[in-house]
Amino acid sequence: MSDMRELLEAVSRGEVDIDEAMTQLRGYEDLGHSRVDISRASRNGVPEVVYGAGKRPEHLLDILASLQKHGNDILVTRLEPEVAAQVMAAYPSAEYHDVARLLKLQREAPALAAHTIAVVCAGTSDLPVAEEVCVTAEFYGNPVLRVFDAGVAGLHRLLDSIDAIRACRVVVVVAGMEGALPSVVGGLVSAPVIAVPTSVGYGANFGGLSALLGMLNSCASGLSVVNIDNGFGAGFLASRINQL
Amino acid sequence: MSDMRELLEAVSRGEVDIDEAMTQLRGYEDLGHSRVDISRASRNGVPEVVYGAGKRPEHLLDILASLQKHGNDILVTRLEPEVAAQVMAAYPSAEYHDVARLLKLQREAPALAAHTIAVVCAGTSDLPVAEEVCVTAEFYGNPVLRVFDAGVAGLHRLLDSIDAIRACRVVVVVAGMEGALPSVVGGLVSAPVIAVPTSVGYGANFGGLSALLGMLNSCASGLSVVNIDNGFGAGFLASRINQL
Amino acid sequence: MSDMRELLEAVSRGEVDIDEAMTQLRGYEDLGHSRVDISRASRNGVPEVVYGAGKRPEHLLDILASLQKHGNDILVTRLEPEVAAQVMAAYPSAEYHDVARLLKLQREAPALAAHTIAVVCAGTSDLPVAEEVCVTAEFYGNPVLRVFDAGVAGLHRLLDSIDAIRACRVVVVVAGMEGALPSVVGGLVSAPVIAVPTSVGYGANFGGLSALLGMLNSCASGLSVVNIDNGFGAGFLASRINQL
Amino acid sequence: MSDMRELLEAVSRGEVDIDEAMTQLRGYEDLGHSRVDISRASRNGVPEVVYGAGKRPEHLLDILASLQKHGNDILVTRLEPEVAAQVMAAYPSAEYHDVARLLKLQREAPALAAHTIAVVCAGTSDLPVAEEVCVTAEFYGNPVLRVFDAGVAGLHRLLDSIDAIRACRVVVVVAGMEGALPSVVGGLVSAPVIAVPTSVGYGANFGGLSALLGMLNSCASGLSVVNIDNGFGAGFLASRINQL
Amino acid sequence: MSDMRELLEAVSRGEVDIDEAMTQLRGYEDLGHSRVDISRASRNGVPEVVYGAGKRPEHLLDILASLQKHGNDILVTRLEPEVAAQVMAAYPSAEYHDVARLLKLQREAPALAAHTIAVVCAGTSDLPVAEEVCVTAEFYGNPVLRVFDAGVAGLHRLLDSIDAIRACRVVVVVAGMEGALPSVVGGLVSAPVIAVPTSVGYGANFGGLSALLGMLNSCASGLSVVNIDNGFGAGFLASRINQL
Amino acid sequence: MSDMRELLEAVSRGEVDIDEAMTQLRGYEDLGHSRVDISRASRNGVPEVVYGAGKRPEHLLDILASLQKHGNDILVTRLEPEVAAQVMAAYPSAEYHDVARLLKLQREAPALAAHTIAVVCAGTSDLPVAEEVCVTAEFYGNPVLRVFDAGVAGLHRLLDSIDAIRACRVVVVVAGMEGALPSVVGGLVSAPVIAVPTSVGYGANFGGLSALLGMLNSCASGLSVVNIDNGFGAGFLASRINQL
Amino acid sequence: MSDMRELLEAVSRGEVDIDEAMTQLRGYEDLGHSRVDISRASRNGVPEVVYGAGKRPEHLLDILASLQKHGNDILVTRLEPEVAAQVMAAYPSAEYHDVARLLKLQREAPALAAHTIAVVCAGTSDLPVAEEVCVTAEFYGNPVLRVFDAGVAGLHRLLDSIDAIRACRVVVVVAGMEGALPSVVGGLVSAPVIAVPTSVGYGANFGGLSALLGMLNSCASGLSVVNIDNGFGAGFLASRINQL
Amino acid sequence: MSDMRELLEAVSRGEVDIDEAMTQLRGYEDLGHSRVDISRASRNGVPEVVYGAGKRPEHLLDILASLQKHGNDILVTRLEPEVAAQVMAAYPSAEYHDVARLLKLQREAPALAAHTIAVVCAGTSDLPVAEEVCVTAEFYGNPVLRVFDAGVAGLHRLLDSIDAIRACRVVVVVAGMEGALPSVVGGLVSAPVIAVPTSVGYGANFGGLSALLGMLNSCASGLSVVNIDNGFGAGFLASRINQL
Repeated sequence: MSDMRELLEAVSRGEVDIDEAMTQLRGYEDLGHSRVDISRASRNGVPEVVYGAGKRPEHLLDILASLQKHGNDILVTRLEPEVAAQVMAAYPSAEYHDVARLLKLQREAPALAAHTIAVVCAGTSDLPVAEEVCVTAEFYGNPVLRVFDAGVAGLHRLLDSIDAIRACRVVVVVAGMEGALPSVVGGLVSAPVIAVPTSVGYGANFGGLSALLGMLNSCASGLSVVNIDNGFGAGFLASRINQL
Repeated sequence: MSDMRELLEAVSRGEVDIDEAMTQLRGYEDLGHSRVDISRASRNGVPEVVYGAGKRPEHLLDILASLQKHGNDILVTRLEPEVAAQVMAAYPSAEYHDVARLLKLQREAPALAAHTIAVVCAGTSDLPVAEEVCVTAEFYGNPVLRVFDAGVAGLHRLLDSIDAIRACRVVVVVAGMEGALPSVVGGLVSAPVIAVPTSVGYGANFGGLSALLGMLNSCASGLSVVNIDNGFGAGFLASRINQL
Repeated sequence: MSDMRELLEAVSRGEVDIDEAMTQLRGYEDLGHSRVDISRASRNGVPEVVYGAGKRPEHLLDILASLQKHGNDILVTRLEPEVAAQVMAAYPSAEYHDVARLLKLQREAPALAAHTIAVVCAGTSDLPVAEEVCVTAEFYGNPVLRVFDAGVAGLHRLLDSIDAIRACRVVVVVAGMEGALPSVVGGLVSAPVIAVPTSVGYGANFGGLSALLGMLNSCASGLSVVNIDNGFGAGFLASRINQL
Repeated sequence: MSDMRELLEAVSRGEVDIDEAMTQLRGYEDLGHSRVDISRASRNGVPEVVYGAGKRPEHLLDILASLQKHGNDILVTRLEPEVAAQVMAAYPSAEYHDVARLLKLQREAPALAAHTIAVVCAGTSDLPVAEEVCVTAEFYGNPVLRVFDAGVAGLHRLLDSIDAIRACRVVVVVAGMEGALPSVVGGLVSAPVIAVPTSVGYGANFGGLSALLGMLNSCASGLSVVNIDNGFGAGFLASRINQL
Repeated sequence: MSDMRELLEAVSRGEVDIDEAMTQLRGYEDLGHSRVDISRASRNGVPEVVYGAGKRPEHLLDILASLQKHGNDILVTRLEPEVAAQVMAAYPSAEYHDVARLLKLQREAPALAAHTIAVVCAGTSDLPVAEEVCVTAEFYGNPVLRVFDAGVAGLHRLLDSIDAIRACRVVVVVAGMEGALPSVVGGLVSAPVIAVPTSVGYGANFGGLSALLGMLNSCASGLSVVNIDNGFGAGFLASRINQL
Repeated sequence: MSDMRELLEAVSRGEVDIDEAMTQLRGYEDLGHSRVDISRASRNGVPEVVYGAGKRPEHLLDILASLQKHGNDILVTRLEPEVAAQVMAAYPSAEYHDVARLLKLQREAPALAAHTIAVVCAGTSDLPVAEEVCVTAEFYGNPVLRVFDAGVAGLHRLLDSIDAIRACRVVVVVAGMEGALPSVVGGLVSAPVIAVPTSVGYGANFGGLSALLGMLNSCASGLSVVNIDNGFGAGFLASRINQL
Repeated sequence: MSDMRELLEAVSRGEVDIDEAMTQLRGYEDLGHSRVDISRASRNGVPEVVYGAGKRPEHLLDILASLQKHGNDILVTRLEPEVAAQVMAAYPSAEYHDVARLLKLQREAPALAAHTIAVVCAGTSDLPVAEEVCVTAEFYGNPVLRVFDAGVAGLHRLLDSIDAIRACRVVVVVAGMEGALPSVVGGLVSAPVIAVPTSVGYGANFGGLSALLGMLNSCASGLSVVNIDNGFGAGFLASRINQL
Repeated sequence: MSDMRELLEAVSRGEVDIDEAMTQLRGYEDLGHSRVDISRASRNGVPEVVYGAGKRPEHLLDILASLQKHGNDILVTRLEPEVAAQVMAAYPSAEYHDVARLLKLQREAPALAAHTIAVVCAGTSDLPVAEEVCVTAEFYGNPVLRVFDAGVAGLHRLLDSIDAIRACRVVVVVAGMEGALPSVVGGLVSAPVIAVPTSVGYGANFGGLSALLGMLNSCASGLSVVNIDNGFGAGFLASRINQL
């Protein structure tokens, strides 16, 4: 409430113009093509994240300008390299992770959380999604333990790291093909497990459907699932749980 | 009936040739590759609209010539830019909307309808479909209220415009991913709601299936659905309802 | 390690017979038809839960006897009333929740957790699944806030309880049909959200597929999904997160 | 606003008790298992309609009591005959339509609308859904023109009634199997067409999927679609459009 | 039997070499990568047709050489233009239909059949498949009546030609989107109807699935269906029936 | 035209009442719940066939009365035994085939066609559909050759009858599971082949989808497909072709 | 060849009647409704197995009589208890396994194979399918090692038996839900692994689809898959491999 | 055990460095992006095979270096030609099969197995998958009989080679489209049959789904299935069975 009073006083003093005051009272800035949600941090704890796919570069730049103007750290997901290059030209301090297709623009490094998130993936081909999980989690200040290429066809690769995984507060498991790894991990840990199906595979994997269905039907308890290839979603949720 | 007599009298006077008379009596012009429906306006209220996808440019130009010869305003949907350029070369007064992929050729601006159509979309990536709705509705003379990027993850963006939306006679809601926005809007208005699922998303959206199923199963009443990405269909129907 | 020594000393003193010692060293009891996992609590934090569907009553009773003999509290999911009656006859102190189809057999009430789990459901027809979430969470000692029938077609029913929901540490959202509620809730809270699609609906809901896809493609962040109608899984995971 | 003042004055005079006042201010009555939306008429124009499937009879009766107490006319959809009988016992003035599986309880017959709704169905086996459309439309005061069993395999049956259909303001077309009828009707009228796919058929109709996909992909303009077998939804929307 | 004797006598006279004699006795020529079926005409009435998709050019040329050596007229389906160009270089008298993607190589024009095949298509975008039907039918010597772009959204275009269609012995109907045209035609003729679904459309047409399901579930009798976009199959079968 | 004059003269003489004259001029009788197509024989060669599934017995009886009154032979498909019994009570001369679930009512046996239809089925479990084909074909006067249980796992059973099959003018092949039989038959005959997938099988046959897809993708030419379990459709089409 | 001579000599001596001689020469007995494959053992090594589902009891009994007359051991799969009872009445020495729904009728116990088949299943609810594997394998004379309820949520249950499994020549793995067990087993053994998906599960298991897709996409090598719930097929194939 | 002692003695003598000793004790080498399974041969009989799709070239080269350092023969599957060229540059002795997209690097030719594997394919377009089977089988030392283009539309092409096929110990059958060939082969041989569905076809083959479902539902016994286009998997399993 006092925020509102302060804002109106600033308006009355001419320090904040009318449009900006309206934007702040509404909680979003209306760019015509987009309504940038500048009050998300107050509702959801963190600022709006920008979904990069299918946006025109000029719209994207408008959105980033709005977010930055209102003091938000920025994370853009699913950003193609060509568009990323345009953003980098405008924001030289931005960082683009080409494997994860994530762009981030943070004024300062986030404080490190007390607990660690384990990110386990089944195969080397799952790396882009697994890195999307990791970079997202790190963006929000979480230490990350990477255990990559530990699929069930060679269980000893997983078991060898299981103590380190058990020491983490949340476990994210990324797998394509049959998506069996989350069930196996779920049977070995007592932390919440977030399963990420990937579209890695061919034929009857039907673009990740096989891994998705496998994870949804897991016989292990304490496991939930995000969309196919949704590394960002898993990293975000893992961070949220890790920082409870 | 008197139309037919007038036509035949014109034939008898040699003012209309036999082929054209046959075309008018039949209600379509047969171009071999196409049967252009020149009597649609008398049956359906408005002239035939041309589906641009998958047509050879030479066929398309034949069809446009036939429609224009018989005095119809022209709207072409799903027209790729390269083909549009060929059409523009032949019809310099045509207008091409590259976001909406619509081409229109009208002799004069249509009379404005008394009521307004609200077009609400969930995200900036849904813009091409949302603009297809808007441009179509405008082609038929409807004022349009655009409320873009008002998805459910930041409800205040929608609620802030809800009074303006409620003042409209028809509401079109465009959304991809989970397609939840039409249900929310449907619960807040008493106008008919036309829901347009888009293919925006990835993984388990299966090309728009998730949004389509979401909208078909909406718990809100007074809502119906068109095909995935079918902005034209929604704009056309909205116009029809708006002008009742 | 000292556990093993104690066990072997007890064997040497004749206090524990060989078969039981083997069972404990192996971590499971082999009943021929089943291998009861008596070491799950040590790996996963809580004892094995029994999946009741498709098991013959005589097998089920064997399994319960084995679990009880090894000192485990018991939870049976998806148990049909007729089979439950047979179990109740054998274990009069068991409790059967007919809405949730859960049977529980606990020696004493669990200690109450410090935080509360919110369980929100969209419609009255989702009650069986919502109650399965609640009873499971309560079995593990979690206080539960029930907000039932708060679907998006009447948003004020949700908004009226949103402060109470925001005060919870984890939120479970149960919905059938289009499954839009988790997205809306996800946009309003900063806690982790577990989405449970239900098979409530008809026609193009395809047994819960519409709600499942809707939730997997949610535009809200911080949300993950369990199997259709999997109230137990959501309650279990919510408990795990709530007690971190 | 004056409503709220009146309400509070009634409270201060002791004419309305506190619980009821809270219910009215909140806009819903909380029955624990259900949150009855008593403010829907003010938002959506008409009171909440009760989805009958999957509700326990005792819950259903609670909901009906709440709706009636707050002065709403009542419509229950997808109500099985056995449950309907229990409701009829409690509300002798209710009316149950067994073909349409609808129950209605109206204090007085609604005023008749100025325009008529045409309800066309393809086959005799589609009757239950077609009647659900009709009875719903009549519940809201709309005159209805029934054209039943006019499928495309015998087009003259449709063409014979086409003038009467054209005289209506809205057309609802109900069809199973290949769902071709809405396209044909859509090509012959200038009114909005609401298409209702039914699950009538077998084999590769996959529970109505064939008719649903057929209607969504219609080549006719001015057509939208509701869920498979959703006669209520179509009747409700038709009424909304008819009374614009 | 006398064929075999003649062949062996020719071998004994040294007029036919051993390999060729074995090929003829076996009924196929083994090229290693392919077993060219040179006895198909004696079993099926017409020689083997070559499926062009997915074959390496060098394999395709081998196959054509073998077919020609054994005196067969040649038809290649689904042949991409680049590969067709290579074939044309080797066989200058071959004819390539680029719309239909068919290549044919006939020593002389086939005798004309006594009856005509009607080929009706719904839209101009269905032309490639419709032409594949026509060219195939003509390859086997059938007169063809083309009625193109006669979809159900403008029924008069079909009705205007219905007498000519009724005069044909077989009717092939090609349609994409909702695939309603075969049902309508099927209700108006007494000839066998072969329905060809096309992949024309977008969104919920799922690559032709909507048209396919529509046709399989047709309420009209006397209709059967071939694979999506299988113009060759329909033309072949139509020819077979037409020449009974 | 003279038919119409005769009819009107009969009306003028009072021999035909007004309602009946209207019915005949319209070409259908309107029973309210149904529009019985009494002019189908003149359009399609044979009278309307009644789809028995999902019709109320009283409606069915009305329809049969109307058909009989206008002099049509009657065939009812997919008729459950209980309803058939009610029909038999009203029409003692009707015949019900319980395996094929067909009821027929013919004034006299049809004249026998000159050619024979072969009906081949893969397994004994496909019998109900195969008999539906046979009885339908016989209803229209076609001699039928039955070759049952000749599936591809024991090819000699088919080859032993192949000469008899080759002597037929049309071949219907009925198969469930993988639906391979039509391809094999199609490779051995020069007659048109109608393939009927059945729902026989389990698991990944998905209600007949496996057989349906197998037949649609057949590598044999000259083959077309009807709906899963649509024995009537295949028998009807076979008759139409057989009597060309 | 000498078989044929012996047969004909027996005919000439009047010891074998003409019909039986024809049956033997043809390799099948034609019962009208069925063509019993009496020569399968000579082609495939073992006699025809009878698929019990969907067969009328009288047909089934005819088939069994024919098989027995020609000296075959009999196995009937997917036989419902009621039909089994009828068979048992006719063949008192037959044995019915009600869990596996298999009936067998062997003149003498088969000779035992030198190697053992391991049958591993994931959960107790998979027992019916697992027993179908075991009983089938035993019918053909294979020793069987049963390792039941060894799913991946408690890996130690599997690892404890892994040496015994490794000592087998073939491994069959039966699992429902996510179907992860075959991948894990496949990573630990060098024998061929046959994976059997079951329909155990609910929701997004879609009748066994999840387990099926999981197994088809397994990252382990040396693994192949049979139909959902096809215990017989797996047992049969395991026997074939085990006795190589 | 003595292996471990030898290893540690080598460490103590300084002949093996600590990192390498740890790698060998763990059974895998951790490259960060990958955990190369160097102990697979001891568990599964043969070394790890590298799945080439979706791996970055630099990661792939790291993996190959690790495998080679530890003395493994190398097989890379699904390797695109551009990446293969990079590998060939680094390993000039490697061999790349462009049809099969396999790369192999063997120190010496494997010893030849005593038995032969038959690889049968239905059409020339299935060649890439069929060759993947063959080259894999040959990599492991198996003689291979190739019978290519022997699909069911011309059965004599198969029957002509059936004796040679019957002489093999294992049969692999590769087919696209309807996938009928494995059923036919399965009915003619007594060896285990491995069926490989391919994605060859179009329209309703849905990327190989038709062939996959056909093979899973085969009426022939003794048959199992691998993933669509999984030639490697079939060749690997065939080798495993062939060398039992």
